[in-house]
Amino acid sequence: MHPDSEASLERLNRQISFLLEIDKLKTIFRRTYLLNADRCENTAEHSWHLAIMAILLAEYSNEPIDLAHVVKMVLIHDLVEIDAGDTYLYDPVGAVDKVERERAAADRLFALLPPDQEKEFRAMWDEFEARVTPESRFSAALDRFMPQLHNYHTEGRTWKEHNITADRVLERNTSIAEGSVQLWEWAQALLNDAVAKGFLAVKPLPK
Amino acid sequence: MHPDSEASLERLNRQISFLLEIDKLKTIFRRTYLLNADRCENTAEHSWHLAIMAILLAEYSNEPIDLAHVVKMVLIHDLVEIDAGDTYLYDPVGAVDKVERERAAADRLFALLPPDQEKEFRAMWDEFEARVTPESRFSAALDRFMPQLHNYHTEGRTWKEHNITADRVLERNTSIAEGSVQLWEWAQALLNDAVAKGFLAVKPLPK
Repeated sequence: MHPDSEASLERLNRQISFLLEIDKLKTIFRRTYLLNADRCENTAEHSWHLAIMAILLAEYSNEPIDLAHVVKMVLIHDLVEIDAGDTYLYDPVGAVDKVERERAAADRLFALLPPDQEKEFRAMWDEFEARVTPESRFSAALDRFMPQLHNYHTEGRTWKEHNITADRVLERNTSIAEGSVQLWEWAQALLNDAVAKGFLAVKPLPK
Repeated sequence: MHPDSEASLERLNRQISFLLEIDKLKTIFRRTYLLNADRCENTAEHSWHLAIMAILLAEYSNEPIDLAHVVKMVLIHDLVEIDAGDTYLYDPVGAVDKVERERAAADRLFALLPPDQEKEFRAMWDEFEARVTPESRFSAALDRFMPQLHNYHTEGRTWKEHNITADRVLERNTSIAEGSVQLWEWAQALLNDAVAKGFLAVKPLPK
């Protein structure tokens, strides 16, 4: 790096522009409620929480993983929501064009970076989406696992608000096992307990 | 790991308890305003933003660094604020017992973890606070650098609210240079421009 050259200043300016742009992720809200506050979680703080979860629970991955890579991947996995918004896991309408919307967002956002970092970030995001590497399978498992904790510890608040039943939760989260059989076993016990306690309904509520 | 043993279940339960506890960091507010929303930033989303900044700006560290270690450190560096609250950089009263309050918080919080992870997290936090390794110097530089961006791009909102003058900003942030001379040079140009544009006052406003 030559700090005085125009090219290197241009590079740093692009990196800063990207950092300013992603501040917006703090205003993208998910369906999940915080444990101790009467508001939903935003995607930036969710990404932070996942990164620490990855550090703490890495030992439960089915396969050996490069933890540093997992941490990076979960930190950036939801950046596309800046343009595409958060699509709720149980929203069949949002799911229709989710891939398209998120790809367009990735195209725009990562292009703000210098070319080498654009390539690096895009590759990580594509890897997360494709779920074919041990790191992406484990990252995706954590991304599904975390909301179960928030739901359980708010007495099923989001499940109840969206009339989500146990069979749908099981069906949509069984992929946790692809990243971590141990975490999926633990989650299943939690979900059974959620049903027993009335946090999670077995049948849909009458409308 | 033996998933069926009581000891391993106890271990996972402790890890999860810690993850639930740190959800509270999402409700700890800093003085910095978001760029596009009329609210201050919370410490969880700040930590996420810093982690991505570390990934993107690692090349500007004065010394070679282990980036994965920096990322981990910035993710956990403010966890103590769950108990100790955020102490504003320009608050001389809060500064008096900051160290004491934060150490007590670290004692309580990290003790929720299994002993090996308690040791790892505590060591990282102590390292961040001590600022004697290249990784901690660079992490601390980013932690000081980021609020300059938020302040500048909100036309000095927090500076104005707290009647902070340019000399204090320069004095309190010159340590950025210990982690990255290049970023400090860039920040100084930004601060000069903030003064020129009237975002940052040279003299205190009359009370």
